Amino acid sequence: MALINCDMGESFGLYKMGDDDAIMPLITVANVACGFHASDFNHMRKTVRSAKKNGVKVGAHPSLPDLQGFGRREMKISRDELANCIIYQVGALKGFLEAEGMTLYHIKPHGSLYGMAARMEHAAHAVADAADVFKVPLMGMINTLHEKIYTERGHKMIAEFYVDLDYNDDGGLIITREHDAKDAKEAAEKAVRAIKEGKVKSVGGKDIAVRADTICVHSDTPNAVELCQSVRAAVKPYLSAA
Amino acid sequence: MALINCDMGESFGLYKMGDDDAIMPLITVANVACGFHASDFNHMRKTVRSAKKNGVKVGAHPSLPDLQGFGRREMKISRDELANCIIYQVGALKGFLEAEGMTLYHIKPHGSLYGMAARMEHAAHAVADAADVFKVPLMGMINTLHEKIYTERGHKMIAEFYVDLDYNDDGGLIITREHDAKDAKEAAEKAVRAIKEGKVKSVGGKDIAVRADTICVHSDTPNAVELCQSVRAAVKPYLSAA
Amino acid sequence: MALINCDMGESFGLYKMGDDDAIMPLITVANVACGFHASDFNHMRKTVRSAKKNGVKVGAHPSLPDLQGFGRREMKISRDELANCIIYQVGALKGFLEAEGMTLYHIKPHGSLYGMAARMEHAAHAVADAADVFKVPLMGMINTLHEKIYTERGHKMIAEFYVDLDYNDDGGLIITREHDAKDAKEAAEKAVRAIKEGKVKSVGGKDIAVRADTICVHSDTPNAVELCQSVRAAVKPYLSAA
Amino acid sequence: MALINCDMGESFGLYKMGDDDAIMPLITVANVACGFHASDFNHMRKTVRSAKKNGVKVGAHPSLPDLQGFGRREMKISRDELANCIIYQVGALKGFLEAEGMTLYHIKPHGSLYGMAARMEHAAHAVADAADVFKVPLMGMINTLHEKIYTERGHKMIAEFYVDLDYNDDGGLIITREHDAKDAKEAAEKAVRAIKEGKVKSVGGKDIAVRADTICVHSDTPNAVELCQSVRAAVKPYLSAA
Repeated sequence: MALINCDMGESFGLYKMGDDDAIMPLITVANVACGFHASDFNHMRKTVRSAKKNGVKVGAHPSLPDLQGFGRREMKISRDELANCIIYQVGALKGFLEAEGMTLYHIKPHGSLYGMAARMEHAAHAVADAADVFKVPLMGMINTLHEKIYTERGHKMIAEFYVDLDYNDDGGLIITREHDAKDAKEAAEKAVRAIKEGKVKSVGGKDIAVRADTICVHSDTPNAVELCQSVRAAVKPYLSAA
Repeated sequence: MALINCDMGESFGLYKMGDDDAIMPLITVANVACGFHASDFNHMRKTVRSAKKNGVKVGAHPSLPDLQGFGRREMKISRDELANCIIYQVGALKGFLEAEGMTLYHIKPHGSLYGMAARMEHAAHAVADAADVFKVPLMGMINTLHEKIYTERGHKMIAEFYVDLDYNDDGGLIITREHDAKDAKEAAEKAVRAIKEGKVKSVGGKDIAVRADTICVHSDTPNAVELCQSVRAAVKPYLSAA
Repeated sequence: MALINCDMGESFGLYKMGDDDAIMPLITVANVACGFHASDFNHMRKTVRSAKKNGVKVGAHPSLPDLQGFGRREMKISRDELANCIIYQVGALKGFLEAEGMTLYHIKPHGSLYGMAARMEHAAHAVADAADVFKVPLMGMINTLHEKIYTERGHKMIAEFYVDLDYNDDGGLIITREHDAKDAKEAAEKAVRAIKEGKVKSVGGKDIAVRADTICVHSDTPNAVELCQSVRAAVKPYLSAA
Repeated sequence: MALINCDMGESFGLYKMGDDDAIMPLITVANVACGFHASDFNHMRKTVRSAKKNGVKVGAHPSLPDLQGFGRREMKISRDELANCIIYQVGALKGFLEAEGMTLYHIKPHGSLYGMAARMEHAAHAVADAADVFKVPLMGMINTLHEKIYTERGHKMIAEFYVDLDYNDDGGLIITREHDAKDAKEAAEKAVRAIKEGKVKSVGGKDIAVRADTICVHSDTPNAVELCQSVRAAVKPYLSAA
């Protein structure tokens, strides 16, 4: 059940990011960082174990190779290289899933890689190339190039709706290196509207078409725990088990 | 058949190491670098493809995290961290094996990690912890702590004999950051003696007990191609298919 | 005036470490991370600017190359390599000092490099080799091998006393990957005793000889701000300007 | 005298790139890699020492942070970050120059950073920001945005001409991740024509305006030694000491 998904396991070495201990019990699907924008082999193990303990499904959250920029600096990289980059990360995560007796639930590209797949053909194909290998659904947004390419190539796309990022007038996400706190009540209302009406208000005040098979909250949004609680309570009646 | 194994795929980005194109057809098992001492996601993909094309079995060659030192700088790192470090790398390689429809043949620790596992309990256990996850044999040397621990824990150890490294009087390998060229004929004779008599002459002139289920040649030994050819021809009659 | 020194600028990318904004006004000397155990080029610039604004002197805080381990994993590395490793980092920091019109005050090795210099001849010499280049004092502890080597080679050593780390019975520091909070009042008393009597109580209850030309507080100690305030107020009368 | 410049010190760890030993005696200015696209602290020290021994001037060759891509993958990065990125690298190199009693001669951005500065305002300004700090000339190409911005801001630009890269019809360089061998005689003729006539033939057969205060040869061009010899002999009469 992809009720609510969150990017998890984004600490690195001694550096902490996100209150994973508080968030894990509130979510149903974890997008687990694979060491390229965040995390390392120790945090990956710990995160997978925590997900298992909390009955949370685990997907891979691969990124451009950019630890310093948290995967939020776009770079020029070919389809083949990108596919290899993703396969490496997903494979590494599967090692920890194997160690804990779990299976991979999905792949969701992180940060700029997500944005690139939404706009650039070679990037969307690279993601789909990796999904061909691991045979799991991809998480993404409707009305994007990646939706078109993933589905044309026969991959299931779990459509997600972001409650802590803004949408521009073209339906694109506005990705920032750091996220601001969001009003928890408004976020829950946005989530419910996205599910029931398939719409969200853009920064320009326009109604944008969205689809919400799952709601995404970022763990590095300052009030992520509060957002998860508020959104989870609100969306539960509308999102059925899958 | 583990007739002759070689550390492969050790190029990185634009940097070339080893004449993999010439060596791959000469070996039967490739220990493939996983990005921590050498290689990257592109070279891993290319190496796995080349192994497949040449009918060569693929094992993982995980290392300490040390690209600059080529995994030959020992570091203090706990059993749990080491196990995670290995699982990450083996998992990543398995991603590429999955992409090419291949299976993992074995795990062989690289460089200082190999040496640490031969002498230090926590390191040998960390390697065995990773083997518990992937359920494949470990490559190693007899009369070492790792042989004791691997076998006590029920893992199969493929015993290897090195024709391009020297043994000290205690039976330990002398690992150097760069390898010298070796006489190809002598190397073949050493290999055959290791197989038939289970012995090698140490640097101090002593006969050391060895076991040779497989012969190892390093791809970064300057005359690796010549060594592979010479050794392969010499050992073929003695090492049966496995 | 080296009244109170603190390891600063240890954030990395989006990862925060230490409350530098609160600590900088409380200290007189900043040991600035150089990108090898922590920090990056952006945080280094920001930290140097903050030091300048607060009238704080800046020294380099070079480390083993180990971002994941925060420079707290010892590794085998030769004197020449270590010297080069330190020169690279100190040079990089000097670039930012040059950008801000400041000069380098001292060098203080970080974490395991500090501990290695305290016990291992090649490491202490490597640090002194770097000091030969930049012609600044070294920060260290008395009754260590590094004190002996630094001073024999004619370098000035600023002796520091740690209020947030424990000393073992041999006078050595007990370095941990993460630091616990310490009682601020006790810390101040320890600092004053170190200055006035040249003594500290070890974990085994023994009185250990120390010298306190400066007091060190770690910014990643949970209550670092409180410690700095308490210690600074207490030691001010005893440590004269230098 | 900037007669002939070459990108030097591009080996990394055990990985070799370029025949620096053969090339160093043939050039007059070395653009020394600073660890971000190539090199490490050991190779930087070695390269600076070799330059000193051969009477070769040393400039910094800073790059985007991209070791795997050899600094040839463009990425989105702001002016401030880029300036800090360059200052870090140039400072690190200056550490080694200080160790060897040498001074910094110039700064020449590497790979994609060079190309970005030629086309993008924020990148050209970032390079100039770093030059403000170190007060040395910048190496670049005429008829580019970087020429305009460097000179408007009062920096001296040493105009260079490439004999081993092709120019497109707009006068831009065609930068590839790997370089092909070039005919040594043709390269020398191109160099002389660039100096005497200020012209080069583009890939489209057009005459493009160039200025050649110095000739550049890449050390990773397969026949770099031969090119250096041929070009150096040909251009010596035309480029005076500076």
